Amino acid sequence: MTVSREVELEGHIIDSGMMQSCFGIIMDLGGSFSVQEFDIGRHKDEESYARMLVEADDEDQLQSIVHELHQHGVNPSDPKDATLVPAPDDQVVPHGFYSTTNHPTYIRHDGEWIEVEDMEMDCAVVVEDGDSPRAYTKVLNAIEEGDLVVTDETGIKVQPPERPRDSGGAFGFMQGGVSSERPSESTIRKIANAIEETKKEGGKVMAVCGPALIHSGAREDLARLVREGYVDMLSAGNGFAVHDIERDIYGTSLGMDTESLDHPRHGHKHHIYTISEVIREGGIEEAVESGTIESGVMYECIDNDRPFVLAGSIRDDGPLPDTITDAVEAQNAIREQAHEADMVLMLSTLLHSVAVGNCLPSTTRVVCVDINPATVTQLLDRGSAQAVGMVTDIGTFVPILAEQLLSED
Amino acid sequence: MTVSREVELEGHIIDSGMMQSCFGIIMDLGGSFSVQEFDIGRHKDEESYARMLVEADDEDQLQSIVHELHQHGVNPSDPKDATLVPAPDDQVVPHGFYSTTNHPTYIRHDGEWIEVEDMEMDCAVVVEDGDSPRAYTKVLNAIEEGDLVVTDETGIKVQPPERPRDSGGAFGFMQGGVSSERPSESTIRKIANAIEETKKEGGKVMAVCGPALIHSGAREDLARLVREGYVDMLSAGNGFAVHDIERDIYGTSLGMDTESLDHPRHGHKHHIYTISEVIREGGIEEAVESGTIESGVMYECIDNDRPFVLAGSIRDDGPLPDTITDAVEAQNAIREQAHEADMVLMLSTLLHSVAVGNCLPSTTRVVCVDINPATVTQLLDRGSAQAVGMVTDIGTFVPILAEQLLSED
Amino acid sequence: MTVSREVELEGHIIDSGMMQSCFGIIMDLGGSFSVQEFDIGRHKDEESYARMLVEADDEDQLQSIVHELHQHGVNPSDPKDATLVPAPDDQVVPHGFYSTTNHPTYIRHDGEWIEVEDMEMDCAVVVEDGDSPRAYTKVLNAIEEGDLVVTDETGIKVQPPERPRDSGGAFGFMQGGVSSERPSESTIRKIANAIEETKKEGGKVMAVCGPALIHSGAREDLARLVREGYVDMLSAGNGFAVHDIERDIYGTSLGMDTESLDHPRHGHKHHIYTISEVIREGGIEEAVESGTIESGVMYECIDNDRPFVLAGSIRDDGPLPDTITDAVEAQNAIREQAHEADMVLMLSTLLHSVAVGNCLPSTTRVVCVDINPATVTQLLDRGSAQAVGMVTDIGTFVPILAEQLLSED
Amino acid sequence: MTVSREVELEGHIIDSGMMQSCFGIIMDLGGSFSVQEFDIGRHKDEESYARMLVEADDEDQLQSIVHELHQHGVNPSDPKDATLVPAPDDQVVPHGFYSTTNHPTYIRHDGEWIEVEDMEMDCAVVVEDGDSPRAYTKVLNAIEEGDLVVTDETGIKVQPPERPRDSGGAFGFMQGGVSSERPSESTIRKIANAIEETKKEGGKVMAVCGPALIHSGAREDLARLVREGYVDMLSAGNGFAVHDIERDIYGTSLGMDTESLDHPRHGHKHHIYTISEVIREGGIEEAVESGTIESGVMYECIDNDRPFVLAGSIRDDGPLPDTITDAVEAQNAIREQAHEADMVLMLSTLLHSVAVGNCLPSTTRVVCVDINPATVTQLLDRGSAQAVGMVTDIGTFVPILAEQLLSED
Repeated sequence: MTVSREVELEGHIIDSGMMQSCFGIIMDLGGSFSVQEFDIGRHKDEESYARMLVEADDEDQLQSIVHELHQHGVNPSDPKDATLVPAPDDQVVPHGFYSTTNHPTYIRHDGEWIEVEDMEMDCAVVVEDGDSPRAYTKVLNAIEEGDLVVTDETGIKVQPPERPRDSGGAFGFMQGGVSSERPSESTIRKIANAIEETKKEGGKVMAVCGPALIHSGAREDLARLVREGYVDMLSAGNGFAVHDIERDIYGTSLGMDTESLDHPRHGHKHHIYTISEVIREGGIEEAVESGTIESGVMYECIDNDRPFVLAGSIRDDGPLPDTITDAVEAQNAIREQAHEADMVLMLSTLLHSVAVGNCLPSTTRVVCVDINPATVTQLLDRGSAQAVGMVTDIGTFVPILAEQLLSED
Repeated sequence: MTVSREVELEGHIIDSGMMQSCFGIIMDLGGSFSVQEFDIGRHKDEESYARMLVEADDEDQLQSIVHELHQHGVNPSDPKDATLVPAPDDQVVPHGFYSTTNHPTYIRHDGEWIEVEDMEMDCAVVVEDGDSPRAYTKVLNAIEEGDLVVTDETGIKVQPPERPRDSGGAFGFMQGGVSSERPSESTIRKIANAIEETKKEGGKVMAVCGPALIHSGAREDLARLVREGYVDMLSAGNGFAVHDIERDIYGTSLGMDTESLDHPRHGHKHHIYTISEVIREGGIEEAVESGTIESGVMYECIDNDRPFVLAGSIRDDGPLPDTITDAVEAQNAIREQAHEADMVLMLSTLLHSVAVGNCLPSTTRVVCVDINPATVTQLLDRGSAQAVGMVTDIGTFVPILAEQLLSED
Repeated sequence: MTVSREVELEGHIIDSGMMQSCFGIIMDLGGSFSVQEFDIGRHKDEESYARMLVEADDEDQLQSIVHELHQHGVNPSDPKDATLVPAPDDQVVPHGFYSTTNHPTYIRHDGEWIEVEDMEMDCAVVVEDGDSPRAYTKVLNAIEEGDLVVTDETGIKVQPPERPRDSGGAFGFMQGGVSSERPSESTIRKIANAIEETKKEGGKVMAVCGPALIHSGAREDLARLVREGYVDMLSAGNGFAVHDIERDIYGTSLGMDTESLDHPRHGHKHHIYTISEVIREGGIEEAVESGTIESGVMYECIDNDRPFVLAGSIRDDGPLPDTITDAVEAQNAIREQAHEADMVLMLSTLLHSVAVGNCLPSTTRVVCVDINPATVTQLLDRGSAQAVGMVTDIGTFVPILAEQLLSED
Repeated sequence: MTVSREVELEGHIIDSGMMQSCFGIIMDLGGSFSVQEFDIGRHKDEESYARMLVEADDEDQLQSIVHELHQHGVNPSDPKDATLVPAPDDQVVPHGFYSTTNHPTYIRHDGEWIEVEDMEMDCAVVVEDGDSPRAYTKVLNAIEEGDLVVTDETGIKVQPPERPRDSGGAFGFMQGGVSSERPSESTIRKIANAIEETKKEGGKVMAVCGPALIHSGAREDLARLVREGYVDMLSAGNGFAVHDIERDIYGTSLGMDTESLDHPRHGHKHHIYTISEVIREGGIEEAVESGTIESGVMYECIDNDRPFVLAGSIRDDGPLPDTITDAVEAQNAIREQAHEADMVLMLSTLLHSVAVGNCLPSTTRVVCVDINPATVTQLLDRGSAQAVGMVTDIGTFVPILAEQLLSED
């Protein structure tokens, strides 16, 4: 026996690859299809529309196909209201709850499509009933008993952003995925343009930074970008802040003078001493106020009111009093920041970039920079449609970026 | 004006490279030396002894040189008692506190040398006075007001383990650092021998595991090693446990059937559903008891009473109820485990391997396995003298290791 | 003023991504299009057909678009005969000559479509007129004065192979590109199946090998695969052969005993001595016949009449008398071998794999194995539609592959 | 029965690690030793001297130990004349011939020590008898019947360069091996200083370049360095020259405009067309003279009389008429260039860097730059004592280097 369901796609479904993905999903999962209607956009600006019948051997297989199609923006053509089931307990979701993608999503409720707020992947969707009903994402551990959680696949519409191929503007270049083989200086110029465009539009730029940025000598230039307002928010770990402050207090990063390259052996002592000094003061802000910290990225954040989140990890020394040691609390702080960002620079850190990336909707512009191609690929695979990757040395990237941004003023 | 201090070295100081390091440190830091006495071991089994005067331009430079020499096992020849200063507040160490290496260390107290317990790097040393005085390490955030903390460099003796070059036995091969260019199967055989020798000596083997181990299909073989007692303890993250359990409940890892390679698109849903199921049960042990989890690495840990630590991170989904989300708590749990381990296998995880490595004395045997040479190098650089690295595919490494260990029984 | 040309696509043009590529090319190059006719395959087995008008600002732009479309299998809908221009001199092609892809290609001559023989990319196409006209590729340096060379874009049809998604059989898994995150043992089993299927169909398997294969201890297992007929041809460099023979004569590879891991210091002397011994004998075959070489990959090639090509490079020591030192001659030898191969295993060598890959039509099955993901990606990007990549350790890959192939007999 | 030989070491034998290596070699190879005399330098500028008796179980083992010690600068204390045996045939060396290191080497002949000319590793040493006898290296394939070849280990003295730790000057920083974790801009400044110092001393700088340099947009800056005389010689492959010239003729590199990043799809056609154009002209010099090539690295080489070697490889398209296709001929051309270089910049090419590195004595200054740490490590391991490595993006490295060199004028 065969079961089937009718689905439809619309938009730039060929150009964006959606149609191809759709065919691929059905066949990979062992189903088949028949195309019922197909209106192709005749010109490059016209949208296309397709309606097709998906067939599978049994209901399980069909659901699995329809689920996958969903994630890629293919929706059932006979929309019903979403199924809502109350959460049986705190942190416990109903069976078969709908797990989100990071794409803009709509829930059908009382015959109306409501946009889901705070889009983020791997969350449940909770609907608040009432006169003006709302839908928003909740991570599993934030679910409260009685929350009305969307289950199954019906009444849900996902809209993956399309990649308009010939878009002009600074973000045009951001359509191409990893640009490891692209000319380095020209690519950095494009990224500088994208930052400027974001700022002109009143957007916020967030930098996610790993300690390699300090070791590679890019600290002073990042500090200038913070001071001059090209970086509005910072997300990093304990290590980044300690290395940055060590350079201020002791003139070294992990014991090496990053200017003269002298004395590479002073070593770890400065690192742990730096932590101890900041603990003694009570925190980074206190240490800035007392004059213990007089320069650097963290200094500029404090001095210019750029909010920062320092998330703890099990490899931290110390940690600093500012570091949020609980992973769930840290995720919440990261989430709040991420939802405000219009453009995110991920600078030589896998852990923090993944954590931030997990909280971003697919509509946020992302630039990933790392010297390890595997890191860049891994970050881009998580899937912002507006993400671009660059494989380069962070120690030369930041100075060139800063020169292009700051000399253009 | 010149200042100077007399230091001495003993042991296999040439063969182990200690003498060379010592000369290098002095010159790198701008000092000079004159050798006062030098007795070289005439035969390969004899130890050598050197006494020399280190000279520097000022006291600061001298201290910095003597500090570095210390870390490498060069000690002042005129030992005095260690300087003890009470901690001024909780989590606040006295100025100039001594920050530990991971080598066996002794503190001179009332004219006697006391061995420091729980050696671990980047800690303070606290001395407990009394009839039988003790000295032990404390991480910064565990310091309590009034703790007697060792400061400065006097009265401290560090003994980096030597690498006896022609040592026989299974660990002989472990002297060579990264073995990325060594024959793969033969190297795995050596590692198998080292595990067997550790078990025969009554030692404990700890496995530190990343999620790639599950994705690459090595789960069943690792589960067998846990069941058969070749792995006594497990240290991992939330992701590892979720992937392992997903394979049990849904037959997939991140949505792919690791046997048939079928259905590569089921995707993320299984991952988040797995977490939800375990939360519903209350934890992994409960899920094993209820029959929800029937196989795999976590199952074998529960079924065979092998303790495990799941440390949280900011990139976790969920997390599982068993995951310790606070980084400091998680470090304490890792620390306790690490101090009990006699041999540690670090299997395709950088974050957790660094966290465990931070807690290990340099005398613990360590094997690092990763397909990324940079990861192996970074782990070995942290410096266990008994560490060996292997650049290989974890998905073929674990099966071949398991076959060699289990077929030999 | 606008210029335009009508083109058509047929086959699985959506599923294979051809339609998406086509839209992308037109827009990337600044053109536009209008779709004139579109018949979509209603079921997964049905082919589709599209006819569209490509528009550009001027003839140059149009030609550049049509050229690119060509490479992806989009052909003008009003075919004319190909333009033939005689080569003005040896090694000199006419202006505007057609440079080939590696896809099956047809030339229209006297109103008939002739298939181009010996397809290979970056070549010229030469037509031999006469009663039964032929068309074949020639590399630039083989062009002779007067050769009739195809120029411009007219009268040429390219057919990139489609990736039939639900193909059964052993090669089904080969549709997925790089499988670095796939389960290792299961993937090797699939590759073993594909080799067996190739052999059953009477096909020939070619191994392209780098010296790392010997260093990593996989020599004996590859030698068995040659002996048992799973490898029919070998393509390698001077270094591979020398390391293989060194292991036979001196029991070492670059001075290390690959079994016992003993004596890692004997060093380079064995390498250069091995070369000297083979030169003394006059070549590998002579050294096998005289009993100087008694085992290994090269031995089995000689003993079982498996043809091999040893191509020289500027980093070679020696070289051996069997090594072809001229790059053009070596390419010709590689070309001849490559055209006979039905399946190619590229084993841990970038240089030789690229050289062989350059000579392969896109219809040949290719498996690339390397521990460096960048190497695998680079090889797959060159574009066999039937290529699959695996990121793993060659030193564990070959033994597991050999066990699966040889124990199944 | 035990056999023994007396050997001696002198110089900075502890600081340079020679003493440690020596002890290690003896023990690794199963021998033992007794130190007969040891005079340690009391101050950092004083040299040390050691004389010791090496013991082994049999003559074979002893020879193997003494051979290894040799390579590291430990010489027998009872020097005899070197053993000379005539080569039995062209390209055939006598049994037991001495295979060279890349260190300065002396041959004892008629009681006198003669320095070996053209030092290079893996060669034979040929002595020309007569009134003023000479000794020089010959690669195996250059040996002629009757050449007097040095065999065995007697009468040979090797002097590995020491690494004077506190050397001032621009090359001081070059003592530290791979500097992947060093601050990028500061390290580039040090390299710029080293180039300037080399030029001031009247030395010659050679650049070894891979095609990635062009793709990454660094072409114009390298061309300026050639024009301004900071690069005196170029060693590259066919691909580098073609990409460089393609950029001049078509404004693209592999089809991409490296300035605007536009039109990434024009593709391979430009590459093969470029080759065809240069073949048509007869060569690069002819194409420069005719005005076909008007800018770029190759143009500046021709225009400023900077000699270049283009060495062929089996992956070349074309090749250009200037490319030396025979590997042995190409090696000879590289060898000649390499022997004239005082400083070598190896820029993002493994193949050509290894080929050049093979011809360099260990006294030539070498800087290796690549984004892949494995490439840098592999090059440094070949062992110039004055080699320094940097892991960075060639596309940002060359512009920053050029700016530092050219703006300082």
